[in-house]
Amino acid sequence: MAGQIELIQGGITSANGFQSAGMHIGLRRKRKDLAIVFSEKPCDWAATFTTNTVKAAPVLWNKDLLEAGAKTRAIVVNSAIANSCTGLAGQQHTKEMAETTAACLGLQPSEVLVASTGVIGVHLPIKMVTTGIKATAPFLSSTFESAGNAAEAITTTDSFVKQAAVQFKIDGKLITLGAMAKGSGMVHPNMATMLSFIATDLNIEQTLLQKALSQSVPKTYNMISVDGDSSTNDMVLLLANGLAGNKRICDEGEEFQYLVEGLDLLNTHLAKAIASDGEGASKLIEVSVSGAKSVEDARKLARHVISSNLVKISFFANDANWGRIVAAMGASGVEFDFDKIELSMSSGHSHLPLLVDGMAYWTDEKNERAVLAGTEVKILVHLGEGDSTATAWGCDLTHDYIDKSGKYRRVHSMSRAAAAEPVKGVVA
Amino acid sequence: MAGQIELIQGGITSANGFQSAGMHIGLRRKRKDLAIVFSEKPCDWAATFTTNTVKAAPVLWNKDLLEAGAKTRAIVVNSAIANSCTGLAGQQHTKEMAETTAACLGLQPSEVLVASTGVIGVHLPIKMVTTGIKATAPFLSSTFESAGNAAEAITTTDSFVKQAAVQFKIDGKLITLGAMAKGSGMVHPNMATMLSFIATDLNIEQTLLQKALSQSVPKTYNMISVDGDSSTNDMVLLLANGLAGNKRICDEGEEFQYLVEGLDLLNTHLAKAIASDGEGASKLIEVSVSGAKSVEDARKLARHVISSNLVKISFFANDANWGRIVAAMGASGVEFDFDKIELSMSSGHSHLPLLVDGMAYWTDEKNERAVLAGTEVKILVHLGEGDSTATAWGCDLTHDYIDKSGKYRRVHSMSRAAAAEPVKGVVA
Repeated sequence: MAGQIELIQGGITSANGFQSAGMHIGLRRKRKDLAIVFSEKPCDWAATFTTNTVKAAPVLWNKDLLEAGAKTRAIVVNSAIANSCTGLAGQQHTKEMAETTAACLGLQPSEVLVASTGVIGVHLPIKMVTTGIKATAPFLSSTFESAGNAAEAITTTDSFVKQAAVQFKIDGKLITLGAMAKGSGMVHPNMATMLSFIATDLNIEQTLLQKALSQSVPKTYNMISVDGDSSTNDMVLLLANGLAGNKRICDEGEEFQYLVEGLDLLNTHLAKAIASDGEGASKLIEVSVSGAKSVEDARKLARHVISSNLVKISFFANDANWGRIVAAMGASGVEFDFDKIELSMSSGHSHLPLLVDGMAYWTDEKNERAVLAGTEVKILVHLGEGDSTATAWGCDLTHDYIDKSGKYRRVHSMSRAAAAEPVKGVVA
Repeated sequence: MAGQIELIQGGITSANGFQSAGMHIGLRRKRKDLAIVFSEKPCDWAATFTTNTVKAAPVLWNKDLLEAGAKTRAIVVNSAIANSCTGLAGQQHTKEMAETTAACLGLQPSEVLVASTGVIGVHLPIKMVTTGIKATAPFLSSTFESAGNAAEAITTTDSFVKQAAVQFKIDGKLITLGAMAKGSGMVHPNMATMLSFIATDLNIEQTLLQKALSQSVPKTYNMISVDGDSSTNDMVLLLANGLAGNKRICDEGEEFQYLVEGLDLLNTHLAKAIASDGEGASKLIEVSVSGAKSVEDARKLARHVISSNLVKISFFANDANWGRIVAAMGASGVEFDFDKIELSMSSGHSHLPLLVDGMAYWTDEKNERAVLAGTEVKILVHLGEGDSTATAWGCDLTHDYIDKSGKYRRVHSMSRAAAAEPVKGVVA
């Protein structure tokens, strides 16, 4: 079935009936900082939110709407300021973003989802934002250029825009899922500072849409790690407006499976893009664990390895240090038999066996250099304990990461005008 | 009672009846790499070991002896090579280290504890080690110089030697606890690549000795974090030879409490020394959480903050980024009410309030610079949820860390002779 699902160039406007716009409204110094996504028809929608105890105002807004079972028509997103830890004023600002967007588009505020990303603990300059929304809305369009503008406006320290689309057919109808995402910095398994927006023209019941998304996120976005923190703002939103004209999907049959596989393909692509764009990263690292007793074990092991500072630094130092990988696996809490482990690394056509049945292969340095020189290095671990597998993605830890992450709040984010806003004294 | 317990200059030989020696035997290029500790009388002893699923050969050796209830007389420790992931051959090497030490000192092998620290997955050049043990044993002495030699021999990337002692009186008898420890690199809560050896002349039942140690370790060594991995080799060993001549402690009365407080004082001192000597660290960071619902919550929060890359990088960048601290707290899984949080930083006489009742105080940059310029910065978090407290220690994340940790296996550890040893082909 997978052969019939295609990954194509595309973005948030690729599916029928979706428009977007992205503008610079003054929150950042130069780059675009406000995005709007609009659907011509009401959408069923699904979401996953951050597991952080502290949740930003827009996360709370969307959660309430999801629980109320509201249909949606639009998403408004700002970058530079996260509107997190901003108390009642922050909630009021989120509401004003929804109200202004709704007024521009002839909708109810409850039909508008909100997202923010950027610095925590700073108030949004709300007039700048509402003025910006009004200026942005007239540019909504379904072109690929508009999709790119929106994708740029949701980034923070990202060094490139992340967007893609997948297509497949159901009953002869072409179904499209278009998406844009942002990551970079503070990215970790439980969806830390990661935003992803997916828009499809599929016609499907909301509960099934949610089920498909909830299955896909743990395999994709939750398997990436750039550093060890979860953020207060992360979310994945999936909107379905039904305009493809397929017969409404009401059960978990073959059509539903198409959606599941399409989502996995799209989300894996975006997750890898986010992982490879970790702040200062020079390499994408992929950890594949196989032969585990359970999927849970496999995921825990893969994530523990990809989250280990010591493993990440080894790759920056071009050192195939399997000892650190094994130590990270052991620290995960998962029980395994070291004597059964097979561990190797590969990149391109080069392959470097390191452990076979728990026995060390000391490989020549030339082969080691060839594998580690790659910009995409795979770590392959086979446990010999069962049939379960998992894959995680991350990057190396570099000088550049420390520079970029250290200067984040001061350099990368807010314009002078935005930074000059309220915040003197007390915020609540 | 605490006033009667004194932290003094001292080391592993400070208590009556303990001798030590430290030598360079060729495992490292120049620095000392083999230590022996010897007690003139058989010791009751207690220990805590790494929780890593993968345990190095010496950890397995000591665990077996502890479970067998054997008394002990000596410890032999090598640095440079961890003897971890080395299979049956590694276990044989540990046994030979104990046997050789025992033969030199007129003991049974079961009276000798073993520890190793260094690179994982490499075989010990066992003849170099046994020859080195024989060369080292004649130098055993109870001088402070000998303690320093042993303390140096157990280090790896440590930039300074960690040793200290505490003294107090029980029934007019002077009780001494002397200790040496190593940390730096790969140090994390659950005792990662951390060795600590404590020798006391107290007379006490083994079960109470273990109880005191098991209470102290979670408050001290397990509350430090330099990076996120647990190692395969960590242990704390506490030996008591009874030579102080106090009436044997057989219950948890006042005398037992002296031991508990003495251990806490000594272990806190060493834990802070380890944290401040994290690879490349420029600052010691102390996180104190108060007002938590339970000690478990307080510890989880403090450790999560101190383990956050983003928090650590903020300090390197001299940015009082409370948003990252709150995000790290939220990611710990502990429930708390953001609106009740008080958060401040301090160093020396400077104090920087950042959050009061969940409301942000935007402080002037001069005050921020004064606090962050310190080499010891405290983060104080009050939750307003209960009475429980915890403190954790760590350091900032710097360019230097990445350099040192990246080059660890190639530069810091083995001599050419040690690296040239077996390991071509297969190890098991």
